Amino acid sequence: MSGSPVQGDEGMWLYSAAPKEYLKKKYGFEPTDEWLDHVRLSSVRFNSGGSGSFVSADGLVMTNHHVGADDLQKLSTKENDYLKNGFHAKTRADEKKTTGLELNVLQKIEDVTAKVNAAVKEGMSAGEASDARRKAIDEISKAGSDVEKKVRTDVVTLFAGGAYHAYTFKAYTDIRLVFAPEQQIAFFGGDPDNFEYPRYDLDMCFFRVYEKDQPAKIKHYLKWSEAGSKEGELVFVSGHPGRTNRQNTLAELQYLRDVQYPAQLALLNRREVLYSSWGERNEENRRRVKDDLFGVQNSRKARMGGLGGLLDPKLMARKEAAEKRLKDFIAEKGLKDAAKAFDTIATAEQTRRAIATGVNMFENAQGFNSASFGIARVLLRASEELPKPSGERLREYGDARLPSLKDSLFSDEPIYEDLEVLKLADSLTHFATTYPDSETTKAILAGKSPRERAYELVSGTKVRDVGFRKKLFEEGRAAVNAANDPMIELARLIDAQARKVRKKFETEVEEPKRQAAAAIAKARFGLDGTSTYPDATFTLRLSFGTVIGYSEAGKQVAPFTQMGGLYERSAEHKNQPPFDLPKRWEDRKGSLDLQTPLNFVCTADIIGGNSGSPVINKAGEVVGLIFDGNIQSLVLDFIYDDEQARAVSVDSRGMVEALRKVYDAHDLANELTGKK
Amino acid sequence: MSGSPVQGDEGMWLYSAAPKEYLKKKYGFEPTDEWLDHVRLSSVRFNSGGSGSFVSADGLVMTNHHVGADDLQKLSTKENDYLKNGFHAKTRADEKKTTGLELNVLQKIEDVTAKVNAAVKEGMSAGEASDARRKAIDEISKAGSDVEKKVRTDVVTLFAGGAYHAYTFKAYTDIRLVFAPEQQIAFFGGDPDNFEYPRYDLDMCFFRVYEKDQPAKIKHYLKWSEAGSKEGELVFVSGHPGRTNRQNTLAELQYLRDVQYPAQLALLNRREVLYSSWGERNEENRRRVKDDLFGVQNSRKARMGGLGGLLDPKLMARKEAAEKRLKDFIAEKGLKDAAKAFDTIATAEQTRRAIATGVNMFENAQGFNSASFGIARVLLRASEELPKPSGERLREYGDARLPSLKDSLFSDEPIYEDLEVLKLADSLTHFATTYPDSETTKAILAGKSPRERAYELVSGTKVRDVGFRKKLFEEGRAAVNAANDPMIELARLIDAQARKVRKKFETEVEEPKRQAAAAIAKARFGLDGTSTYPDATFTLRLSFGTVIGYSEAGKQVAPFTQMGGLYERSAEHKNQPPFDLPKRWEDRKGSLDLQTPLNFVCTADIIGGNSGSPVINKAGEVVGLIFDGNIQSLVLDFIYDDEQARAVSVDSRGMVEALRKVYDAHDLANELTGKK
Repeated sequence: MSGSPVQGDEGMWLYSAAPKEYLKKKYGFEPTDEWLDHVRLSSVRFNSGGSGSFVSADGLVMTNHHVGADDLQKLSTKENDYLKNGFHAKTRADEKKTTGLELNVLQKIEDVTAKVNAAVKEGMSAGEASDARRKAIDEISKAGSDVEKKVRTDVVTLFAGGAYHAYTFKAYTDIRLVFAPEQQIAFFGGDPDNFEYPRYDLDMCFFRVYEKDQPAKIKHYLKWSEAGSKEGELVFVSGHPGRTNRQNTLAELQYLRDVQYPAQLALLNRREVLYSSWGERNEENRRRVKDDLFGVQNSRKARMGGLGGLLDPKLMARKEAAEKRLKDFIAEKGLKDAAKAFDTIATAEQTRRAIATGVNMFENAQGFNSASFGIARVLLRASEELPKPSGERLREYGDARLPSLKDSLFSDEPIYEDLEVLKLADSLTHFATTYPDSETTKAILAGKSPRERAYELVSGTKVRDVGFRKKLFEEGRAAVNAANDPMIELARLIDAQARKVRKKFETEVEEPKRQAAAAIAKARFGLDGTSTYPDATFTLRLSFGTVIGYSEAGKQVAPFTQMGGLYERSAEHKNQPPFDLPKRWEDRKGSLDLQTPLNFVCTADIIGGNSGSPVINKAGEVVGLIFDGNIQSLVLDFIYDDEQARAVSVDSRGMVEALRKVYDAHDLANELTGKK
Repeated sequence: MSGSPVQGDEGMWLYSAAPKEYLKKKYGFEPTDEWLDHVRLSSVRFNSGGSGSFVSADGLVMTNHHVGADDLQKLSTKENDYLKNGFHAKTRADEKKTTGLELNVLQKIEDVTAKVNAAVKEGMSAGEASDARRKAIDEISKAGSDVEKKVRTDVVTLFAGGAYHAYTFKAYTDIRLVFAPEQQIAFFGGDPDNFEYPRYDLDMCFFRVYEKDQPAKIKHYLKWSEAGSKEGELVFVSGHPGRTNRQNTLAELQYLRDVQYPAQLALLNRREVLYSSWGERNEENRRRVKDDLFGVQNSRKARMGGLGGLLDPKLMARKEAAEKRLKDFIAEKGLKDAAKAFDTIATAEQTRRAIATGVNMFENAQGFNSASFGIARVLLRASEELPKPSGERLREYGDARLPSLKDSLFSDEPIYEDLEVLKLADSLTHFATTYPDSETTKAILAGKSPRERAYELVSGTKVRDVGFRKKLFEEGRAAVNAANDPMIELARLIDAQARKVRKKFETEVEEPKRQAAAAIAKARFGLDGTSTYPDATFTLRLSFGTVIGYSEAGKQVAPFTQMGGLYERSAEHKNQPPFDLPKRWEDRKGSLDLQTPLNFVCTADIIGGNSGSPVINKAGEVVGLIFDGNIQSLVLDFIYDDEQARAVSVDSRGMVEALRKVYDAHDLANELTGKK
């Protein structure tokens, strides 16, 4: 057995198992329990997804603009678009109360593995064991929760079931908006600069937690570093990484590399060209297709980044070595289930390759890309599924999911007929070239060209009428059949094939993989125990790294950008969107110190969900605010890399400079820097 | 035997076999021989590709701005960019002499089929027969040509060898630029409006032919219609369609529909996203990638249009019926070669499907998309091919092709290192995901990620130095081997595989298809003779059709656009490129009659090469100027359609209105309209 399971500054560490020794050895800094408790208690989880931190004794919370975006949107009115134009509460009385937002602070971590496992008795079937575990977990949660006191205990599953920890949170529910800059400056550079570096974004937003209508008194909050960080400095990131797949086997990574990512990229490229060329035809098209276009561009970059990593032979070699180390251990210990599990996964991945196109075109409806088809299929399937007992339905029609299904089915979001025709015509073309001359293609096209047929379907269906949807949903199968709606009939035409391929996927891919993964996870836990970190699960983690640039295509990319660079980049693009500056930033240019650092990168191990995490120095002071990763960091989903992968942050100095000189937000800047 | 070989207003007719009867029957208009001679002698072929017409007795020639673009570019200086800013010769003395441009007028057509075939004697081998035919053709050409008198005779092969016609041209070589508008207005709407309709382009350009330093006196020229055309009117188009593939068998069309077009579109989408996202990063990127981006966008639209037609079951049903009609004739006449030919082609197309990816990735170098790789491979292959006898070399290295090979190899066109890395990294990614885990992929990547490896190759090669290329090309194999250049070594690494798949394509696809197509063409000629029209061959043809709109996605598209629409479209896009108007057009808006028709569509059967063709009414007067087809017209490559396919023209009224009111070009307008 050789080699460490982690490499360099790798790791999204549990607070209960921080890598103290490694830090001491490499950085000469050993965080004390007090330091760890303080940082943990200063860290905040947004129930809307995302991270944050307390940054004043008066309950001030720092996060990203894009984490707060939903709330900015909800608080906006026709007259005041806070998402676009920003918001600044001049006094505490002006702070705006959000709805639905809840912030959680992790008070206590308890290892309850033994308790949970004790519920499983000899001789129980897999199903009984699972039920027994769930019951034990429910009891622990219930015992540790107190709605009155806003205390909640969650039992989190770590190491794919190797450990269970009870996390006890304090919940804050009165959250008020304090400050947000304009979206233009928060997301300066838009898609072209998304996932890129150098970067010039002020992606920040401040809220305040209240208790009993007063700003909450907070004992543990992070002090501000006005000096910021320096190149080469050790920094920490405390936040809630959402999900990683670092335990994927080689066969799984190969599937992603060879099939899934290339197929997704081909589809994303196809749609990006379709949407952007249509958007360029006129202003109204552009407005209608904007969200779809941003979605595909964002995904395209994410997939490109991930694929780039998977195609790096050096990273794959590390994965191979790690898999070999684990397999050697399994062989040595004679763990039969785990030994077989690798083959089970490989076989499942082969099946997945064989059915991928069918799953995508039929069940994932890539051949019928349109909101109208999506609605039509839900109406059809709901009419068939709802009469069954909940447990026997397709899972998204189960009783527990019905409220959100209805929410989405009855949403009155606008659906544009011309955009629907565009999308459906292109995807019918995709379908027809994927299954040329097939009976299904002939039946779908019904003797027409994809373009003509798409128009016929979209203009002929009534599913864009919310009232029609409600009626069919409530009246059920007979009404759905009687409607004779062309889009519903299209959904019906392909539904047997869609269900068949889905079933094959669930029974021959998903389920065997789930079981095999559990066996491998158990073996891995036997090998490394808690000496390493578990895959991300949107629970609080501590990462660390160095503020340092990187080399890309022969060019050295410096770790820091400055405010002056923001103006240069805007001028380079003639101040045209998405490189246009808010007027306020143009007016105040003269008063800014253009040397002030604005963004910086470090090697900390982060992933989606870490947005809004504070970047902290050894003294526990805020030196930055995580808001993105560069494109090379997207491989962190599978494997840590510190050669080019970087976390991207707003600099503490840039934040304060902007608050004072651009926004005249001196009270807020004083509160952050402890000057009030 | 049933059914006509042509449908509706189909046909790119030979002047020697105009469909007089059909015209008489359907339109009550029978063109006289005099009418046909006059229009033919007024028609002009540009040797640079494209069509034109005489429009005054003083040798004035009308064509498209995009046909004249090369000459506008060549005549431009640092101070005067005529391509971009336009040109207007105030007096004849100001008209600017072009270089290299030659215009041809078709004087005489003679059927020499018997003469050519008489050269083939009983008992000759296929090679001997071909040589004998070539010799006879050379003799006819020589006898009919007189360099002094600028008379040239070409023998053109029609009906794939069913007929040979001797075309005698008068050549004009002193061609001077008279007028061109700004490129902005000639190509208003850029890529978004390319191949679309409604349209608002003034895509026109005027030259004048000179003889003995004086404007040539021209007997046959087209008079101008100030009244223009009306909806429902019969119009004619006289021009030089470049190439059509209407004799393709169903198997060939299915290959295009199922394999080639989808693969090309996937590649074009991939590159369009790559180039446009890189271009959006900054102004310099945008400049560097502009030509590549326009190229892929233009091709993407062309392929989409073609694929849309191939996926139309109605069009394919017509193709099936036509093939059945021919096969019935073949069976009836017992034509064994032709009967076998359909299977031969079907088999060849199956082989082509099997090797398409290999041909694309290796021989077409889609896996190594960069100018540097292209140069490196030419250097490598030249060093291997040139020592062989010319006839045994890869065809592009034959003696006859060497001058153009060297021209292109030693061109000092700028090659941008960063753009090269971008393109190569993406195409190496494409290669690696196409052949995952293959030995070739491993060898190509040499342990690096595609991005790192692309940088290493591009920064390490010397092939961007023209001196280096000349040296290696002249010194030959030993020097190429000794150079140890990384890009040349990459070309060497994959060359055996590239040559192998190319050979398979040439021997198992190309050659059997050529022979089979000849047998089918012979049978078809036996069936229809000259009662129909031959595939386009860049020889003069007459098409006709109706000025009429069409219906698209439930909307009726009107046949005419007006000048007012141009201003509306520009305003809709806030006058931003490519919808910005030249200043002159903004200044003169008030003096224009905004109701003046600017562009219109008709059902005439055209294809690339028809650009610049005059659109003529029954009186032989110019009512328009062909400059594009709509996206549905792109299927005309394979099959005529008049449901949605339309030719797009500039209106004669819009041209004169612009000349007078925007450009103060009254002399030119008077010359066109016969008012001087």
